[in-house]
Parts: sequence; structure tokens; C-alpha cells
Amino acid sequence: MDKITWFTLLSTGGALLAISIGVIAPAFAMGRAISQALDAMARQPEAEKSITRTLFIGLAMIESLAIYVLVIVLIVLFRNPLLEYLLK
Amino acid sequence: MDKITWFTLLSTGGALLAISIGVIAPAFAMGRAISQALDAMARQPEAEKSITRTLFIGLAMIESLAIYVLVIVLIVLFRNPLLEYLLK
Amino acid sequence: MDKITWFTLLSTGGALLAISIGVIAPAFAMGRAISQALDAMARQPEAEKSITRTLFIGLAMIESLAIYVLVIVLIVLFRNPLLEYLLK
Amino acid sequence: MDKITWFTLLSTGGALLAISIGVIAPAFAMGRAISQALDAMARQPEAEKSITRTLFIGLAMIESLAIYVLVIVLIVLFRNPLLEYLLK
Amino acid sequence: MDKITWFTLLSTGGALLAISIGVIAPAFAMGRAISQALDAMARQPEAEKSITRTLFIGLAMIESLAIYVLVIVLIVLFRNPLLEYLLK
Amino acid sequence: MDKITWFTLLSTGGALLAISIGVIAPAFAMGRAISQALDAMARQPEAEKSITRTLFIGLAMIESLAIYVLVIVLIVLFRNPLLEYLLK
Amino acid sequence: MDKITWFTLLSTGGALLAISIGVIAPAFAMGRAISQALDAMARQPEAEKSITRTLFIGLAMIESLAIYVLVIVLIVLFRNPLLEYLLK
Amino acid sequence: MDKITWFTLLSTGGALLAISIGVIAPAFAMGRAISQALDAMARQPEAEKSITRTLFIGLAMIESLAIYVLVIVLIVLFRNPLLEYLLK
Amino acid sequence: MDKITWFTLLSTGGALLAISIGVIAPAFAMGRAISQALDAMARQPEAEKSITRTLFIGLAMIESLAIYVLVIVLIVLFRNPLLEYLLK
Amino acid sequence: MDKITWFTLLSTGGALLAISIGVIAPAFAMGRAISQALDAMARQPEAEKSITRTLFIGLAMIESLAIYVLVIVLIVLFRNPLLEYLLK
Amino acid sequence: MDKITWFTLLSTGGALLAISIGVIAPAFAMGRAISQALDAMARQPEAEKSITRTLFIGLAMIESLAIYVLVIVLIVLFRNPLLEYLLK
Amino acid sequence: MDKITWFTLLSTGGALLAISIGVIAPAFAMGRAISQALDAMARQPEAEKSITRTLFIGLAMIESLAIYVLVIVLIVLFRNPLLEYLLK
Amino acid sequence: MDKITWFTLLSTGGALLAISIGVIAPAFAMGRAISQALDAMARQPEAEKSITRTLFIGLAMIESLAIYVLVIVLIVLFRNPLLEYLLK
Amino acid sequence: MDKITWFTLLSTGGALLAISIGVIAPAFAMGRAISQALDAMARQPEAEKSITRTLFIGLAMIESLAIYVLVIVLIVLFRNPLLEYLLK
Repeated sequence: MDKITWFTLLSTGGALLAISIGVIAPAFAMGRAISQALDAMARQPEAEKSITRTLFIGLAMIESLAIYVLVIVLIVLFRNPLLEYLLK
Repeated sequence: MDKITWFTLLSTGGALLAISIGVIAPAFAMGRAISQALDAMARQPEAEKSITRTLFIGLAMIESLAIYVLVIVLIVLFRNPLLEYLLK
Repeated sequence: MDKITWFTLLSTGGALLAISIGVIAPAFAMGRAISQALDAMARQPEAEKSITRTLFIGLAMIESLAIYVLVIVLIVLFRNPLLEYLLK
Repeated sequence: MDKITWFTLLSTGGALLAISIGVIAPAFAMGRAISQALDAMARQPEAEKSITRTLFIGLAMIESLAIYVLVIVLIVLFRNPLLEYLLK
Repeated sequence: MDKITWFTLLSTGGALLAISIGVIAPAFAMGRAISQALDAMARQPEAEKSITRTLFIGLAMIESLAIYVLVIVLIVLFRNPLLEYLLK
Repeated sequence: MDKITWFTLLSTGGALLAISIGVIAPAFAMGRAISQALDAMARQPEAEKSITRTLFIGLAMIESLAIYVLVIVLIVLFRNPLLEYLLK
Repeated sequence: MDKITWFTLLSTGGALLAISIGVIAPAFAMGRAISQALDAMARQPEAEKSITRTLFIGLAMIESLAIYVLVIVLIVLFRNPLLEYLLK
Repeated sequence: MDKITWFTLLSTGGALLAISIGVIAPAFAMGRAISQALDAMARQPEAEKSITRTLFIGLAMIESLAIYVLVIVLIVLFRNPLLEYLLK
Repeated sequence: MDKITWFTLLSTGGALLAISIGVIAPAFAMGRAISQALDAMARQPEAEKSITRTLFIGLAMIESLAIYVLVIVLIVLFRNPLLEYLLK
Repeated sequence: MDKITWFTLLSTGGALLAISIGVIAPAFAMGRAISQALDAMARQPEAEKSITRTLFIGLAMIESLAIYVLVIVLIVLFRNPLLEYLLK
Repeated sequence: MDKITWFTLLSTGGALLAISIGVIAPAFAMGRAISQALDAMARQPEAEKSITRTLFIGLAMIESLAIYVLVIVLIVLFRNPLLEYLLK
Repeated sequence: MDKITWFTLLSTGGALLAISIGVIAPAFAMGRAISQALDAMARQPEAEKSITRTLFIGLAMIESLAIYVLVIVLIVLFRNPLLEYLLK
Repeated sequence: MDKITWFTLLSTGGALLAISIGVIAPAFAMGRAISQALDAMARQPEAEKSITRTLFIGLAMIESLAIYVLVIVLIVLFRNPLLEYLLK
Repeated sequence: MDKITWFTLLSTGGALLAISIGVIAPAFAMGRAISQALDAMARQPEAEKSITRTLFIGLAMIESLAIYVLVIVLIVLFRNPLLEYLLK
């Protein structure tokens, strides 16, 4: 096989692997934060507002980590900067 | 085998692997959030409304992670942008 | 062996592997949600209605993750879109 | 060996592996749900009826996951749709 | 070696592996259910009847999962439907 | 080596492996059930009769899983049905 | 090397491996049962008799699992039924 | 393949792997910190201000670790200093 | 190398491996039983006699499992019955 | 490939691997320290000052460990002292 | 290399591996027993004598397991009975 | 490749691996010690002084372990004593 | 390479591996015993003397296990009895 | 490559690996002992003196284990006694 084929195969396989591994930890972290928020609500219903606010900021920060992975995956699939060395 | 065959094999195998690994963490996270919501309901039945709302927003965010994986898998199976370099 | 054979072998093996791995996490998550619902019922029998409703919505969402895997497996077994490149 | 032999070997080995892995998680989930139901009964004997009903619905949903695996295994052993490409 | 030899070896080895892996989870699940039933009995001796009934239904459902594995193993050892393609 | 030698080696090695793996889970499950029974006895000595009865039925069902493995191992060592295809 | 040599090597290595793996689970299970019995005695000294009786029956059943492994190991070392096919 | 191809493949694959592994621990750590903050809020609502401040400083420090990984990944993808030795 | 050399190497290596793995589980089990006995003594000093008796019987039974491994190891090192087939 | 290529590949891959592994433990440790600090604040709001001070010193020491890894990674990427032996 | 060399290498490597693995479990078991004894002493200082006696008997039995490994290691290093077949 | 190349590659890769593995345990240990110190402060604010002193001595001793790794890594990168045998 | 080289390499590598693995379990065991002793002292300050005595005997016995490993390592590095067969 | 090269490579790599693995367990053990000491101080401030003394003796003994590893590593790097057989 030629080098473009190897590059295509590795990029495709790597992207699939990276996105499936990359969502593991954010998913666990979200599950933990949400369940703790629900627990906190049940114990202190009147603090619902500040709990919800903290929870959503937290979920956004965790989501940002999954977005990092998604961004790298999309860069690799759509616009890999190393491709120009390969096409030369 | 020629390069298209390798590409087809890797894409098919990778898609199967990625989707089966990619749902692991969201499933665990959902299970945790739901069971905690049920626990919270049993302890504070009158907070049912805010618990349910937080739970559903949380499940939607976790589901979004599984959707990321599904989207990458479908891109690979149906419209892989790297395929054009291979067909050239 | 020719390329169709490789494709058939990998699709069959991958489908078997994916479905058997893909049901692991949903099964654990369901087991957790159900057992927590039973626990909640025992502690708060009068909240049975809202517990059951939340449980069934949750089980449906978890089941949706297993369905994603099943759908990808069936696409691979019955109508793989990458097959046309292989048959050309 | 010819291609039909490879196909037969992989299908047989894969089916054995898939079914033995595929029952792991449902079995654990069932064990958890049942033991929690027994615990709930011991704490709240008068809620036996609703506990039993929820338990059986839950066991049926978990069983459905094991059935998915069994169905894919039997499709592979008895009527694999990819076999026609191989016999051509 | 010829193809029948490979088939025989793989079927024998696979059957041994599958049955020894396949009983792991049912055994753990049974152990959990039984020990929880004993615990429930000790706490609520007068609910013995309903505990025993739920336990036995549960053990039967878990046993059914081990039976699935045993059935596939025996199909492979005694009447493998894929054997006809091999003997042709 | 000829095919009978391979068959003999694999059967012997597989049988040793299968029996040593196959007793793991039943042993753990028995240990759990027995220790829970002892705990239940210490808490509710007057329920000894029903505890012992449930324990022995449970141990018999767990033993049945180990017996499945032993039966498959002995079939493989003494009367493997696939041997006739090999001796033909 | 000839086939008898392979057979001897595999039998010896397999027997050593099987016995060392095979005693793991029974040993853990015994340790659990014994320590629970000691705990039960300390809490309910007057139930010592029934505790001891249940403990010894349980240890005997767990020992039986280790005996299964030992029996298969000794069959393989001293009278392997598959040896006659090899010596023919 | 030539050396630039190897370099491109390894950089792409390594970048995908590194970012997907590198977000695991920060995600877990964030999930833990957020859930503990929610727990603290529910127990001591009047300390919300200092809790939020400490939480955000903490999240920023954990995020810095994920940024280290992202920076190294981007250096490798866009401006690898070792590339000049390779192009010479 | 000739066959006796292989046999010697495998027996020596296997014996070392088997004894070092084989003492793991008995050691853990003993540690558990002894520490539980010490705990029981501290809670119920007057039951020391029956505790000590049960402990020693239990340690003897766990020791028996380690002895099984030692016996197989010594058989392999000093009087392996399979050696006669090899020397023929 | 020549030796500079090998060196470049290994340095790039090793740097990516090292940084992604090297932040795992510091991230966990920070998460633990921060969450404990939040817990401590909720229990003893008036000790906020000394808690914050100890927390920040602790985070700085943990960060120093991640910095060690980052320094070695940057040395390898930008100024590896072993490179002179290679260029000679 | 000749056969004595292989034998020497394997014996040396195996002895090092066996002793380092073989002390793992006894060390853990001793740690557990000693820490439990210290705990028991703190709770029941007047039972120190019987605690110490049971502890020392227990440590001796655990030590015996480590001695088994040491003995086999020394037999292999100094007087391996299988060496005579090799020197013939 | 010549021997200096191998030496350079292995030293670079080993240094990266060693430092990233070597900070794992010290980081965890520090995280544990710091979080426990915070917990102790919250429970006993007036013992802050002795807690802080013990904590810092402890952190210094744990840091010393990470320093051992760093020293060996720097010796390997900058002044490896075995290099003289290689350059001869 | 000649046989002495292999022997030297394996002895050196094995010694490094064995000592680094061999101190794992003793270190954990010591950590456990020491921390439990500190806990016991805090609960029962007047039993400090007997606690310290038991602790030191226990540490000595655990240290003896690490010494076994060190002794075997030093025998291999300095006076391996198998070396005479190799030098003949 | 010649034998001195192999020896140098293995010694360097082994030393890096051994030191990074060898500090894991002592670091964990120290972390545990220190955190328990801090806990003990918070509960019993007046026992600070004896706690500190026991802690430091304990840390010294754990440090001794890390020193064993460091000594073997330095012997291998600077004065390996097996080197004389290699240089002959």
C-alpha cells in the first residue's frame, strides 16, 4: 500500500478510537456531578438555585474536556496540518 | 488485498468497536444519575419537580457524549472526508 | 483469500464482539436503576407512582444506548454502505 | 484452508465467545435486582406486590439485552446474510 | 492439517472456554441472591414464604442465562449447522 | 505433528484450564452464601432451620454450575463427539 | 521434538498451572467462611454448635471444588484417556 | 514508506491517543471536586461564596494540567521542533 | 536442544511459577482468618477457647490447599510419571 | 530509515505518551485535595484561612511533580543532550 | 547456546521472579494480621496475652508459606534433581 | 543502526517513561496526606501548628522519592557512567 | 552473543526487576501496620508500650520477607552457584 | 551490536524502570502512615510526641526499602560485579 492509504487508515481508526475513549471520563464525571446535585437538592431543597448554577458551570467545564478531544478528532479527519508534508 | 479493501475492513471493524466502547461510560453515568434521582425522590417526595428537571437536563448532556461517538461512527461509515485522498 | 472473504469474516466477528460488549454497560446500568427503584419503593411506598414513571423513562434512555449498538451491528450485517466500494 | 473453512471457524468460535461474554452483565444485573428486591421485601413486607411487579418488568428488560446477543449469535450460526457474498 | 482438524480443535477448545467463562457471572449472581435471601430471612422471619418464592424465580431466571451458554456449547459440540458447508 | 497429536494436546490443556477457571466463581459464590448463612444464624438463632434449608438448596444450585463445567470437561476427555470426524 | 515430548511438556506445565490457579478461589472462599464463623461466634457464643456444623459442611463443599481440580490434574498426570490415541 | 510518512503517521496517531488519555484524569478530578462542592453547599449554604471561589481556583489548576497535554499535542501537530532534523 | 532439555526447563520454570502463585490465595485467606480471630477475641475474650479451636481447624484446611500445590510441584520435580514415556 | 528519523519518531511519540500519563496522578491528587478542602470548609467555615493556605501550598507541591514531567518532555523535544552523540 | 546455558538462565531468572512474587501475599497477610492485632489491643488491653499468642502462631503459619517458596527456590539454585537428566 | 543510536533512543524513551511513571505514586501519596491534613485541621483547628509541621516533613520525605527518580533520569540523560564502555 | 553475555544480561535485568517488585508488598504491609499502630495509640494512649513492642516485632517479620528477596538478588549478582556449570 | 552494547542498554533501561517502579509502594505506604498520623494527632493532640516518634521510625523503615532499590540500581550503573565476566 502507498503512504496515503496508511495515513487514511490510521487517521480513521485513530479518530474512532480517540472519540470512544475520550468520552469515557467526561461521562463518568458528569454522572457523578449530576447525581451529587440530585442528592444535594434532596437534602437542601431551598439551595436549589445555587446548586443548579454550580452544577451547570461544572458540566460546562467537563464538557470542554470532551470538546478538546472532538476538536483534535475533527482536525485529524478534516484538516490535518501534517498532510502537506505527506502530499509534497 | 488492495487499499480500498483495507479501508473498508478497518472502517467497519472500527465503527463496531467504537460504538460498543463508546456507550459504556454514558450508560454507567445514566444509571448512576437515575438511581440517585430515585433515591432523592424517596427521601424528598415534594422536590420531585426540580429533581426530574435536573435529571433530564443531565441525561441530555450525557446523551450528547454518546451522540458525539455515534456521529463520528456514521461519518466514518457514510461520508469519510479522507476517502477522497484514497480514491484519487 | 479474496477481499470479500476478509470482509465477511471481519463483519461477522466484529458484530458478535460488538453486541456482546455493547450490552455490558446498559445491563449494569439497568440493574443499578432497578435495584435503586426497589429500594426507594421500600422506603417510600406512597411515592410508587413517580418512582415507576422516572424508572421507566430512565430504562428507555439506557435501552436507547443498547439500540445504538444493535443498529450499527445490523447495518454492518445487512446493509453496509462501504460494501459498494468493495464490490466495484 | 479455503474461505468457507475460515468462515466456519470464525463463526463457531465467535458465537461461543459472544454468548459466554454476553451473559455476564445481564447475570450480574439480575443478581443485583433480585437481591435488592429481597432486601426491600424484608424491610417493607406489605409492599410485596408492587416490588414484585417492578422486579419482573426489570428482569424482563435485562433479559431482553441477553436476548439481543442470543439473536445475533443464532443469526450468525444459522442464517448469516453475509454468507451469500461468500458463496458467490 | 486439514480443515476438519482445525474445526474440531477450535470447537473443542472453544466449548471448554465458553462453558468455564459462561458460569462465572451466573454463579456470582446466585451467590449474591442467596446470601441476600438469607439476610432477609434473618431480619424478617415471617416473610420467609414470599422471600423463598421470589428467590427461586430469580434463581431460575439466572440459571436460564447459564442454560443459554450450555445450549450453544452443546449445539457446537453435537450439531453445528455450519458443518454442512464444511463437509461439502 | 499429526492431527491426532494436536487434538490430544488441545483437549488435555483445555480440560486443565477449563476446570481450574470453572471452579473460581462457584467457590466464591459458595463462600459468600455460607458466610452470610453463618451471619444470619448469629443474628436469628431460632430461624436456623429455614436458613439451613435455603442455604443447602442454594449450594446445590451453585454446585450445578460447577457440574456443567465438569461434565463438558469429562465429555472432552473421554467421549468427544467431534472425534469421529477426525478419525474418518 | 516428537509428539510424546510435546504431550509430556504440555501435561506437566498444564498440571502445575491448573493446580496453582485452581486453589485460589477455594482458599479465598474458605478464608471468608472461617472468618465469618469466628465473627458469628464472638457475637452469639451460645450458637457455637450450629455455627460449627454449618461451617464444616460448607468447608467440605468448597473443598469438593478443589478436589475436582486435583482429580483432573491427577488423571492428566497418571492416566490420561487420550493417551491411547497418541500411542497408536 | 519514507521517513516523512512514518513521522506523519506517528504524530497523528500519537496526538489522538495523547489527548484522549490526557483528559481522563482531569475529568475525574473535576467531577470529584464539583460533586464535593455541591455536597458542601447543601450542608453549609451560607459558605457558598468561599466554596465557589475555592472550587473555581481548583478547577482552573486542574484545567491547567489538561492544557499542558493540549499544548504538547498542538506543538506536535503544528510546529514540532524535531522536524528540522528530519527535513535536513 | 533435545527433548530432555525442554522437559527439564519447563519443569523447573513451572515448579517455580506454580509454588509462587499457589501460596498467594492461602496466604490471603490465612491473613483474613487470623485477623478476624483477633478481632473476635477482642470483642468476646471469654470465647477464646472455641475461637482458637475453630481458627486452627480452619488454618489446617487452608494449609491443605497449599499442600496440594506443593505435592504436585514435588511430584513434577522428583518423580514425574510422564517421564517414562519420554525416556522410552 | 536512518537514525535521525528513529530518534525523531521516538522522541515525539514518547513526549506525547509521557505528558498524557504524567498528568494522571497529579490531577487525581489535586481533585482529592480540593474536594477535601471544600469538605473541610463546609464543616469548619471559620478555619477557611488556614485551610486555603495549606491547600495552596499542597497544590503547588503536586503541581511541581507535573512540572518535572513537563520539563523532561521539553528537554527531549527542544534540547536533548544525547543528540550530540547522534549527530557526531 | 547449549542446553546448560538455557538451564542456567531459566533457573536464575525463575528464582528471582519466584521469590519476588512469592513474598507478596505473605507480606500482605502479615500486614493485615499485625494491624488487626494492634487494633484489638487498643480495644481490649487486658487480652494482650492471648492476642499476642494467637498473632505469633498465625505469623508463623504465614511465614511457613513464604518458606515453601524459598525452599523450592533454593532447591532450584543449589540442588535441582532434574539436573542429572540434563548432565547425562 | 549503530550502537550509539540504540543507546540514545533507549535512554530518551526510558527517561520519558521513568519520569512519568515515577511521579504517580508520590502524587497520590501527597494528595492523600494533604487531604488528611485538611480534614484534621477542620476537626481540630487548634492543632494546626503541629499538623502543618508533620505534614511538611512528610511531604518532604515523599518528595525525596520523586527526587530519586529525577536524579536517576538526569544521570541517564546527562552523565551515564556506562557510556564509557560504549565509546571505547 | 556468547552464553556468558546472556547470563550477565539476564542476571542484571532480573536482579533489578526482582528487587523493585519484591519491596512492593513489604512496603504496603509496613504502611498498614504503622498507620494502624498510630490509630491504636490515639485511641488508647496508655497501651503505647505494648503497641510499640508488637509493632516492632511485626515490622521485623515483614522486613525479613524483603531480606529474603535481597539475599536471593545478591546471591545472583555476586555468587550464583549455577555459574560453575556455565564456566565449565 | 556487540555484547557491551547490549549490556549497557539493558542496564540503563533496567535502572530507569526499577527506580520508577521501586518508589511506588514506599510512596503509598508513606502517604498512608503520614495521613494516619495527622488523623491521630487531630483526635488525640496530647499524644503528639509518641505519635511523631513512631511515625518517624516507621518512615525510616519504609525509606529503607526504597534505599534497597536505589542501592541495587547504583550497583548496576556504577559497579556491576558481573561486568568482569563480560570483559574477560
